[in-house]
Amino acid sequence: MQPFVFHNPTKIVFGPQMVKKVGKSTAGYGSKALLVYGQSSIKRTGVYDQVTASLQQAGVSWVEHGGVKSNPVLGHVRTGVALAKAEQVDVIVAVGGGSVLDASKSIAAGAKTDGDVWDFFIDQAQVREALPLITVLTLAATGSEMNSGGVVTNEQTKQKFNIGSPLLFPKVSILDPCLTYSVPADYTAYSAVDAISHLIEGYFTSADSATPLQDRFVEGLIKTIIECTEQILDQPDHADARATMMWAATWALNGLSTAGIGVYGFPNHMIEHSLSALYDVAHGAGLSIVMPGWMTYKAQQHPAKFAQFANRVFGCSGGSEQERALYAAEALKQWFRKIGSPVTLAEAKIPEQDIPAIADNATMLAQKWGLNEYNAEVIAAILKHCC
Amino acid sequence: MQPFVFHNPTKIVFGPQMVKKVGKSTAGYGSKALLVYGQSSIKRTGVYDQVTASLQQAGVSWVEHGGVKSNPVLGHVRTGVALAKAEQVDVIVAVGGGSVLDASKSIAAGAKTDGDVWDFFIDQAQVREALPLITVLTLAATGSEMNSGGVVTNEQTKQKFNIGSPLLFPKVSILDPCLTYSVPADYTAYSAVDAISHLIEGYFTSADSATPLQDRFVEGLIKTIIECTEQILDQPDHADARATMMWAATWALNGLSTAGIGVYGFPNHMIEHSLSALYDVAHGAGLSIVMPGWMTYKAQQHPAKFAQFANRVFGCSGGSEQERALYAAEALKQWFRKIGSPVTLAEAKIPEQDIPAIADNATMLAQKWGLNEYNAEVIAAILKHCC
Repeated sequence: MQPFVFHNPTKIVFGPQMVKKVGKSTAGYGSKALLVYGQSSIKRTGVYDQVTASLQQAGVSWVEHGGVKSNPVLGHVRTGVALAKAEQVDVIVAVGGGSVLDASKSIAAGAKTDGDVWDFFIDQAQVREALPLITVLTLAATGSEMNSGGVVTNEQTKQKFNIGSPLLFPKVSILDPCLTYSVPADYTAYSAVDAISHLIEGYFTSADSATPLQDRFVEGLIKTIIECTEQILDQPDHADARATMMWAATWALNGLSTAGIGVYGFPNHMIEHSLSALYDVAHGAGLSIVMPGWMTYKAQQHPAKFAQFANRVFGCSGGSEQERALYAAEALKQWFRKIGSPVTLAEAKIPEQDIPAIADNATMLAQKWGLNEYNAEVIAAILKHCC
Repeated sequence: MQPFVFHNPTKIVFGPQMVKKVGKSTAGYGSKALLVYGQSSIKRTGVYDQVTASLQQAGVSWVEHGGVKSNPVLGHVRTGVALAKAEQVDVIVAVGGGSVLDASKSIAAGAKTDGDVWDFFIDQAQVREALPLITVLTLAATGSEMNSGGVVTNEQTKQKFNIGSPLLFPKVSILDPCLTYSVPADYTAYSAVDAISHLIEGYFTSADSATPLQDRFVEGLIKTIIECTEQILDQPDHADARATMMWAATWALNGLSTAGIGVYGFPNHMIEHSLSALYDVAHGAGLSIVMPGWMTYKAQQHPAKFAQFANRVFGCSGGSEQERALYAAEALKQWFRKIGSPVTLAEAKIPEQDIPAIADNATMLAQKWGLNEYNAEVIAAILKHCC
């Protein structure tokens, strides 16, 4: 195990009907909110009405900043920042999935700086202050509800980059699993892929092999996510499966799985971000294409951990270590296919001949994240495995 | 899964030599500390010198309140409260294991009330304010470093009771695994028992059977604790095993394993507290006596979960569900015996004829904790299994 600091101050309020607590939770941080949400779905499902009724009851007024899209874009974040400043809001209330939460974190930071919010993404400025953030989650996937990071795409430069600061942990996150019952099958699958991706990044890239606690944590989470995703696809309002999936996705990226594992990377995210930036692929869909390819590449270098994964998650005990290691990639790929998430570039209508351009785009993030092993050639080789 | 609120704001600073950070961590909360510790061991091991040097360097002065004993007593807590008030300290620095931390939490609460600190334990008062608490952990066992509870024995009334409040979460806990290298074999074993006990209480007493995430979390933790305890007993300065044990024990009682499982109880602790209160048995030693007995009693009522435990933790797959369930109790008992922790009342020199008196004492806590299933007769029957 390696040294670490773990500090996750987000308060989680979890359970059916907890959406009604948003007003009271928000009132603790101010009387005027910026209400951030996505497309029209929260109005269709009634969540919008529940949230605004609760705010009203708690004496919180609000201005609205709807229209966050999946793979949220910088332009819309900047509009939100301007609105938050002009209206002098005290607090941000984010109602949606990871995209809405990530955009809201960016606005929370942008509203408290005189500079441009994008500076936080390109390491030209550090977040020194931020508006408090309350979230109401409607999609169990990204873990943004209990961490301090966010991802936004600069639509001009085609950079899907990240912001991060301890000041960006939500103060309170309301996790009401009922709000996810209406998530359709495709996004349920992408969400499972996303949560799994968060877990395997650290699991497979940590240089420390003495992390039995974190290993079992990750393996147990992935087994559980696999189980409950299948239950949800079979029965979308399966209360226990939706609840378990919601909490599992939160755990998958709240710092628990990586505390103590030392240096690790996000190579799958690095490559996927280029797919999203260039083709606007849903994040989870991009990941289910990239992950099996990356795992096939990496399993050959460090087979032991991949073989352990194949054994503990998929019950594979036969064959050589190398064979089991490659089976880890194959088994996950087959499971992604089973739940209906794409596993090849072609399935997402991304032409194979674009691989060099994708690899070029991905090197920007590889450099930003210090993933020195990944030059354009290596990334292209990995993408070849995704065909 | 059941509704819950999870909010654990303690900052963990983990790793070798992190003890040197205590001064800086403390200085953020004031310039005068009450330094609470146990017997002479921290002076012998050099930890006292490291802590005081760090405080001095950070410009923090301190007054000392040493002498906390294992199973900390109310009289000594009251002296600490009086000292904290008289010296008008800003912050408490606790250096030790669970006993020191629990005593320190009690002092933190007591220092901010005009009433008697014991009132918090007997539900006659609620904690409304508390001094901030910084901890330096020297024993991986109780989880007190990342939770909001504490246990103290009233030596007059023979009540080993608990205090709890969100205000009692340590602000910062420094977990330096090197400080645990000198923990002797017996206390290493008791610590493992204690951490396991924290995990099985919720695991076996939750009425909700749809908690696959929490189940796997608990099972993975226990397997890991078993593994690294054996490594430590084999090699006391095994860096990875000591580190893993330290973080595992923290996870075992920081609210993660029970969030979402609904109502659960601490029946093993309820009975063990009487052993400690009456015979001053080390807490872990008392638990290794009680747990197999309680599990044998309970496995007959609810065999499914016990059978799952036997299968996933001890690899037991043969026999009937009832047989596997009973094997769970037996396998744990044998493992406790293997690591040198007592498994019968006689081994702790507790006379079998005292069972009625122990059961009587335990009913006080059964009532306080609402464990209505446990009257003196039932507790006596469980204790019979511990002979």
